[in-house]
Amino acid sequence: MNLRVVLVEPLYDGNVGSVARAMKNFGLSELVLINPCKIEDFGMAMASHARDVLMMARSFTTLQDALAGADLVVGTTGKRLDEAQHHLRLHLRVPCLIPRELAKKLAGKEGTVALLLGREDCGLNSEELALCDMLVSIPTSINYPVMNLSHSAAVLFYELAQTESECADGCKVEMASGETLALLREKSAQLLRETDYPPHKVDFALLMLRRILGRAELTQREARTLLGLIKKIRWQIACREMRK
Amino acid sequence: MNLRVVLVEPLYDGNVGSVARAMKNFGLSELVLINPCKIEDFGMAMASHARDVLMMARSFTTLQDALAGADLVVGTTGKRLDEAQHHLRLHLRVPCLIPRELAKKLAGKEGTVALLLGREDCGLNSEELALCDMLVSIPTSINYPVMNLSHSAAVLFYELAQTESECADGCKVEMASGETLALLREKSAQLLRETDYPPHKVDFALLMLRRILGRAELTQREARTLLGLIKKIRWQIACREMRK
Repeated sequence: MNLRVVLVEPLYDGNVGSVARAMKNFGLSELVLINPCKIEDFGMAMASHARDVLMMARSFTTLQDALAGADLVVGTTGKRLDEAQHHLRLHLRVPCLIPRELAKKLAGKEGTVALLLGREDCGLNSEELALCDMLVSIPTSINYPVMNLSHSAAVLFYELAQTESECADGCKVEMASGETLALLREKSAQLLRETDYPPHKVDFALLMLRRILGRAELTQREARTLLGLIKKIRWQIACREMRK
Repeated sequence: MNLRVVLVEPLYDGNVGSVARAMKNFGLSELVLINPCKIEDFGMAMASHARDVLMMARSFTTLQDALAGADLVVGTTGKRLDEAQHHLRLHLRVPCLIPRELAKKLAGKEGTVALLLGREDCGLNSEELALCDMLVSIPTSINYPVMNLSHSAAVLFYELAQTESECADGCKVEMASGETLALLREKSAQLLRETDYPPHKVDFALLMLRRILGRAELTQREARTLLGLIKKIRWQIACREMRK
């Protein structure tokens, strides 16, 4: 899937630059601007190492032109249902997906999706919303629902990239094998029996340990270190036993 | 769960203001700054309607002071494994959760979680990472992995807020308190010293234990059971020592 990011009449060049940076952070490169503010030094600075994205951005004067070749148009809106209920054109704003639902819907799809982000002060207007195939809204606090434009963008890019890769290039670490974990439980049980742990509590303690180690999702290296530690402790107890 | 956002030596007031705004967007209010840059007009402007969060922010000169009362410390890092592999102190940076995994781990928990966000230019240093119970890293493009500070913050707040609301009425479990966890680390260290564990490996083993226990999200009951277990083991070793 190719994601085209469309900023509709952005007012501040800092935001445009910040969106470009967030795009590059999540592997996106196609930026389209509709009647943008002038991009000056501050916008370039905010783009940081994503100046190339900003320099390659195409500008249009109409949304229709910006959408040429797009297979699907997704509009973003911060307007919530309770506000929108008083709105005569309610159907323009509902139903609205949350970012995760959108990501699931787009997962594994091919084609070009245009993601529309509206003006900093008033978002997308009715005519623009009417051109959208889907709407997405980030769930925010009712006390302050209006997000910074580039923050909304970053959250959406992040969510769409998640589904795209499901951690494809994330921190891959070798997880402890089932065999090593079984050995760890066996050695823990032996240690417990050697420490006069109250017999009626042993099973409970072992189950608890199993759950704790399970939730910790041990790496192979960590599991081996724990095994080494238990061996040391048991050795210590055994040596002193023998010396008696 | 109460989330305390800790910015470690932020360099730009615009970022601090932007983080405050993102916090309020996701219903957060506790902002702590360590040796921050001066917050001037631009920072206030970027906070927009979250000036109250910025005005209420507390400043400290040491991370230790900023962490007072926190039950769990989560560090953010942009360093990936492939970079970190060449790093002598690799164990400080792995294993690392993605935001969604972190959100799942914290879902339904009670207590105060400190989320540490490092400097814009070089993140958190080794001493700061060593104080973390868990690490989180946002999966980004290898071509440009360095996100803007407030973008990282927004993505993390968004992800944590998602899970918070999903399990709002789920069953709450009492998390081990920071105090109990500190005691657990102290007693583990004593045990290690009493078992002839190779002295040059003690620090490494203790850091690994801290991370394992951090990721395991211990309940208060589990932490107490582990404390009881360590006491039993140490008692066993001591008794046999005396009998010699």
